[in-house]
Amino acid sequence: MTVVKVGINGFGTIGKRVATAVDAQEDMEVIGVTKTRPSFESEIARAKGFDLYVPGDRIPLFDEAEVPVKGTVEDLCEKADIIVDCTPGNVGQMYKDMYSKAGVKAIFQGGEDHSLAGTSFNSTANYQESWGAQFSRVVSCNTTGLLRTVFPLDRQFGVEKAYVTLVRRGADPGDSKGGPINALEPSVKLPTHHGPDVQSIMPWLNINTMAIKASTTIMHMHTVTLELKNEVTTEEAIEVIRNSPRVRVVNSSSGIKSTAEIMELASDLGRDRSDMYEIVVWEDGIKSTGNMLYYYQAVHQESDVVPENVDCIRSMCKLCEADESTRLTNIALGIPYKR
Amino acid sequence: MTVVKVGINGFGTIGKRVATAVDAQEDMEVIGVTKTRPSFESEIARAKGFDLYVPGDRIPLFDEAEVPVKGTVEDLCEKADIIVDCTPGNVGQMYKDMYSKAGVKAIFQGGEDHSLAGTSFNSTANYQESWGAQFSRVVSCNTTGLLRTVFPLDRQFGVEKAYVTLVRRGADPGDSKGGPINALEPSVKLPTHHGPDVQSIMPWLNINTMAIKASTTIMHMHTVTLELKNEVTTEEAIEVIRNSPRVRVVNSSSGIKSTAEIMELASDLGRDRSDMYEIVVWEDGIKSTGNMLYYYQAVHQESDVVPENVDCIRSMCKLCEADESTRLTNIALGIPYKR
Repeated sequence: MTVVKVGINGFGTIGKRVATAVDAQEDMEVIGVTKTRPSFESEIARAKGFDLYVPGDRIPLFDEAEVPVKGTVEDLCEKADIIVDCTPGNVGQMYKDMYSKAGVKAIFQGGEDHSLAGTSFNSTANYQESWGAQFSRVVSCNTTGLLRTVFPLDRQFGVEKAYVTLVRRGADPGDSKGGPINALEPSVKLPTHHGPDVQSIMPWLNINTMAIKASTTIMHMHTVTLELKNEVTTEEAIEVIRNSPRVRVVNSSSGIKSTAEIMELASDLGRDRSDMYEIVVWEDGIKSTGNMLYYYQAVHQESDVVPENVDCIRSMCKLCEADESTRLTNIALGIPYKR
Repeated sequence: MTVVKVGINGFGTIGKRVATAVDAQEDMEVIGVTKTRPSFESEIARAKGFDLYVPGDRIPLFDEAEVPVKGTVEDLCEKADIIVDCTPGNVGQMYKDMYSKAGVKAIFQGGEDHSLAGTSFNSTANYQESWGAQFSRVVSCNTTGLLRTVFPLDRQFGVEKAYVTLVRRGADPGDSKGGPINALEPSVKLPTHHGPDVQSIMPWLNINTMAIKASTTIMHMHTVTLELKNEVTTEEAIEVIRNSPRVRVVNSSSGIKSTAEIMELASDLGRDRSDMYEIVVWEDGIKSTGNMLYYYQAVHQESDVVPENVDCIRSMCKLCEADESTRLTNIALGIPYKR
C-alpha cells in the first residue's frame, strides 16, 4: 500500500488536530510538523512522536529552549508528498512559493482566499475537483458546515435562494485575548464573506449571509432559511439531512438544548480533544412550510474541517474515490458512516 | 389640564422604568406602585417618592420589615384611572379580573398573550387602535423592535416576506440566575412566538422568525431579511429607517461596533438607568440587492417598550393624537423627535 508522507505546517488549533487525524489513517503518515517558536504545543508535538521542523532563523530559539529540531520547514517540504498548511490566515502566498519551489502538493485552509489555490474542497460537494491537484483549499469551518447540509438539500430539492445568519463564537476556548465578553457584534459588511465562500464550491447558489459575533467560545450556530424549487414536507427534509455525510441529527427532547450539551456529548463519545466533527442539526428545529425550509445547525469551529483535510489529501494524491475516503476517514475518527 | 392617575402593578425591570417615565410627563402622575415583598426595589420606590401598595396578605411582611405601605393592590385599582401591569408573564388573567371589578383601565406587557387584552399596541404602527380601550397590551421588546422598522418599511415599499433571526440576551444584567453562560441555545419550536406576535399588530405580514439565546446580558440583536414588493436602493431604505420614530441609526465607523458601545452611548447620553429606548440600526449594515433588503438592529430589552407604555396610556385615556403623544414622550425621555 502506498503510504503518503504528510507534513503539517503549523501546529495550532487546526494543525494539531489534522496531525492526529492523519496519524490515525493507514494510507498516510505524519513525517513532521512545524512550529515557529518553542511552546507548550511544541512539547505536545514531541510527546505525540511528531518530528519538529522550524524556520531556519528560529533554530537558535529552539536550541536555547533545548527543544530538539529535525530540520527546517524547507527540509520538511523536500521530504513530504503533501503539506497541510495550517499556518495563520493570509500568510499563504509566502508559503505557496516555498511549496512550488519544492514541488510539493499543499492544502491551504479557509483563512486563505480561494484564488490562492484556485480550487476549494469539501468532501460532500466536490471531492473529485481536487483529484491530482497540486494545490487545494479546505474551506472554513462555517462554509464546511453550510455545504454539509445545503449541498445535499440542493441536490435533492433544488435551492432557489438561501438566507443564513451565522452566530459566531467570539473566541476559541484556548484563546484568552478574544471577545466580545458581553456583547453581540454584527459583521456589517454585507454579504459577509461566508456566502461567496460557499459559492467557491457551489457557484450556482443564490445565497446571502449575515453574521453576529457572540460571547461564547465553543461553537458557531446558523439559522438557515432555504427557498426551495418545490414544496417539501418537514419529514422529507429531515430524511435528507439525516442521510447527509458528517451531519448528526439531535433532538432537544434528548437533553441537547444548546451547544453546551453538544460539547458534552463529544466528550462522552471519547473523541480526540472532545471534538465534534459532524455538523449538528436539531431535528425538532427543522420546519418546512410550502417551499420554505428552516433549520438550526451548530458547527464546531475547531474540528469540522479535520476530516475534510484527510479526504483532501486522498483526492490530491489520488488514493481512492470519495465514498471510500469518507468511509476510511470516518472509521478512523469514530464518525458514523452513512452510505 | 387633565392629569391621569397611573398605578404601576409590579416594580421590576419594566415597572420601575415605566414609573420613572410616567413621572416625567406633565399629563400623568404615578399614584402608587406595587411590590409583593420588601426588597431593595421597594426601598428604591420609596426613595423616588412612590407610594407602595401590596397584596393584602403581604402587609404583615412589610410591617415586619418596617416598610410603610399605603394600601392594598385593590386600593390602588380603586384610586387609579389606569394600571400599567408589569407583573411577571402569565399572571395577567388573575389581575385582569381585579381590574375589571374595579372598573379601571389596564395595560398588559408582552409576556401576556394578545388574547388577554384583545388589542395590542405599538406607537408607530397602531396608536389609534387602543383609543379609549379598557384593556390593551404593549407588545414585547423584540416585537416592538421589529415593528419600529418593519412597519415603516412595509408602508413605504411593501414587504412581501420577512425572515428574522433574533439573537436574544441570555439574562438581564441584574439577573444572576439566567443563562447560558457559554453556549448558544436555539428556540427549536418554529416559528418562534415573535412572528405571530408581530402579526398581532400587522396581521397581513408574512413573517418567519427563528431565535438563538446567547451568552450576553445587555441587548438582543436581529438580522432582518425583507423581500420587498419592489426594488429599492440601499440609500432609499436607509432614508426610511432613519426617519422612523424611535429608531437610531449608527455607523460602525463612529466606533459603535457592538451592543457594548450602544450601552456606553446610552450611559453617556445621561439617560435614566442608562437606557437606550430607540432601536439601533447600523447604517453600514443596511444593504439592498434588487428587492431584497438586509439589516441588523439591536434592541434594549429593558427599556424599548417604556415610551410605548406612556403612549398607550395617552391612547387609552384619549389624551391626544399619536404624533403629539410621541413628541411629548420623546421630549420627556430625551429621545430625538422626528416628524
